[in-house]
Amino acid sequence: MNAPARQAEYPVALQRAVDAYLEQLRFSEETTTAGLEEAMRYSLLAGGKRIRPVLALATAEALGHTQDDVMALAAAIELIHTYSLIHDDLPAMDDDELRRGKPTCHVVYGEDVAILAGDGLFAEAIKLVLDEQDGDPERVLRALRHLVAAISVSGMVGGQYVDVKETAPHDQAGLRHLHELKTGRLIAAAIECPLLLFGAGEAATMGLRRFAAELGVLFQIVDDILDVTGDEAALGKPQGSDERHGKRTYVSVFGLEKARELARESHHNARAALADAGGQTATLEQITDYILTRDT
Amino acid sequence: MNAPARQAEYPVALQRAVDAYLEQLRFSEETTTAGLEEAMRYSLLAGGKRIRPVLALATAEALGHTQDDVMALAAAIELIHTYSLIHDDLPAMDDDELRRGKPTCHVVYGEDVAILAGDGLFAEAIKLVLDEQDGDPERVLRALRHLVAAISVSGMVGGQYVDVKETAPHDQAGLRHLHELKTGRLIAAAIECPLLLFGAGEAATMGLRRFAAELGVLFQIVDDILDVTGDEAALGKPQGSDERHGKRTYVSVFGLEKARELARESHHNARAALADAGGQTATLEQITDYILTRDT
Repeated sequence: MNAPARQAEYPVALQRAVDAYLEQLRFSEETTTAGLEEAMRYSLLAGGKRIRPVLALATAEALGHTQDDVMALAAAIELIHTYSLIHDDLPAMDDDELRRGKPTCHVVYGEDVAILAGDGLFAEAIKLVLDEQDGDPERVLRALRHLVAAISVSGMVGGQYVDVKETAPHDQAGLRHLHELKTGRLIAAAIECPLLLFGAGEAATMGLRRFAAELGVLFQIVDDILDVTGDEAALGKPQGSDERHGKRTYVSVFGLEKARELARESHHNARAALADAGGQTATLEQITDYILTRDT
Repeated sequence: MNAPARQAEYPVALQRAVDAYLEQLRFSEETTTAGLEEAMRYSLLAGGKRIRPVLALATAEALGHTQDDVMALAAAIELIHTYSLIHDDLPAMDDDELRRGKPTCHVVYGEDVAILAGDGLFAEAIKLVLDEQDGDPERVLRALRHLVAAISVSGMVGGQYVDVKETAPHDQAGLRHLHELKTGRLIAAAIECPLLLFGAGEAATMGLRRFAAELGVLFQIVDDILDVTGDEAALGKPQGSDERHGKRTYVSVFGLEKARELARESHHNARAALADAGGQTATLEQITDYILTRDT
């Protein structure tokens, strides 16, 4: 389980399946709200690797299930991720004007519509799970409960607060706490929710949970590295924006070399957890390698 | 079923039960997010009649159930209502600085925190239902599905968009459409969700559904009247704010006298629907009378 030397391949077929599913979603037939739906779709269909839903599909695969078995839940996670990006980009928050190489939602549609587009995507995400996700009602409830907890005050929303108001200590523990809430819990939910939906034996459950936690850390370290070393055109946003926003990152706290070492360590731990989990983990392994070696 | 001549009494005991339940809610034990929780609680505990949760408790009563049987769901509706008020008051939306006689959330805590406080209350509302609402999982799912649909693009969030962007026709049908989405569907959900949770015979179901739709209309007409005739101190916000925002209301479209007549008509229809529903509807009748005759 040495770190892969060059950029690992991304499971593009899963990404395309997610894109196709997101593309056919409609939120209302009212002409009066068509403009709101347009703003929501603008941000939702702006591209991206769809890492969270792809992780959910790959987790289903690891547990012997099909894409269809978990697609509604997987797509809901991407709707939620998109809602959080729209709100984070607002002038009152991070004030970002570019995202994935395109003007952000509020730049195109105005702040009022952007706030509502975020709110709308949040509601439609929950609705999607409740309307379309198959499975035993008790298991669907359990998966949804985990998803919502991951984006609550003790999850994503709380993490954004900690980031904006800098309420965590300025050390490694504080940095890890911030990222666990802000990005880690939703990434982990992309693995945990299918696990709760389908159920699994103890070894698989324990292994996948360790994997989920480690992958969130890996993702964030690499994100921080790319903000410093990445190519603007490939990233689709200005390079060095973390530094300009005065944000603490793995690079600002540890320096670039140490951050790279931490990323390799995290990758190693994630792959080890997957090996312990057993099952059809080839795609999850591929995603883990990709996350370490990605350049966007 | 003549309209009551003087102000009807409000079921204060139910309001106090809701207040007590909301007061003891906690959203996180993290010290890093204590400031976010404070902002959420500031708006949530700012008072108000708690009409939506009180309606849910009274509907439970009508169907032979206790307050406890539906309190988590009822409280979740108030969390959602509060989230929508916080976002609606933002500078980019209605730009209101006073709500229930107190400075609005963004005035006290800043826009960034107010956006997150709204997002947080939304997540915690869904979490509350999933964590605390008792009942058969399939019925809980059905009630939650209805609640979330009521605040989606084809509900509350869509209604706020129609209001802000004025996308509905400038006539009675357009006004009714706007209010059905923006306020009517959540008020109706306070009745429909307990109905889905507990189940009921056909007469009760049909009667309560008609009642729910009519009550939403009644509530909005009276709200529009009070914006013109109400006492600022009692309302807790500046009088005439609809007019200043250039908003179409029942008063601006029909004039004060005709609006009052429409309110009496709506009240009559709501009471008739309750009579058809049967069951222990005394408290629902009381709320209906109160909504017609309230002065705040």
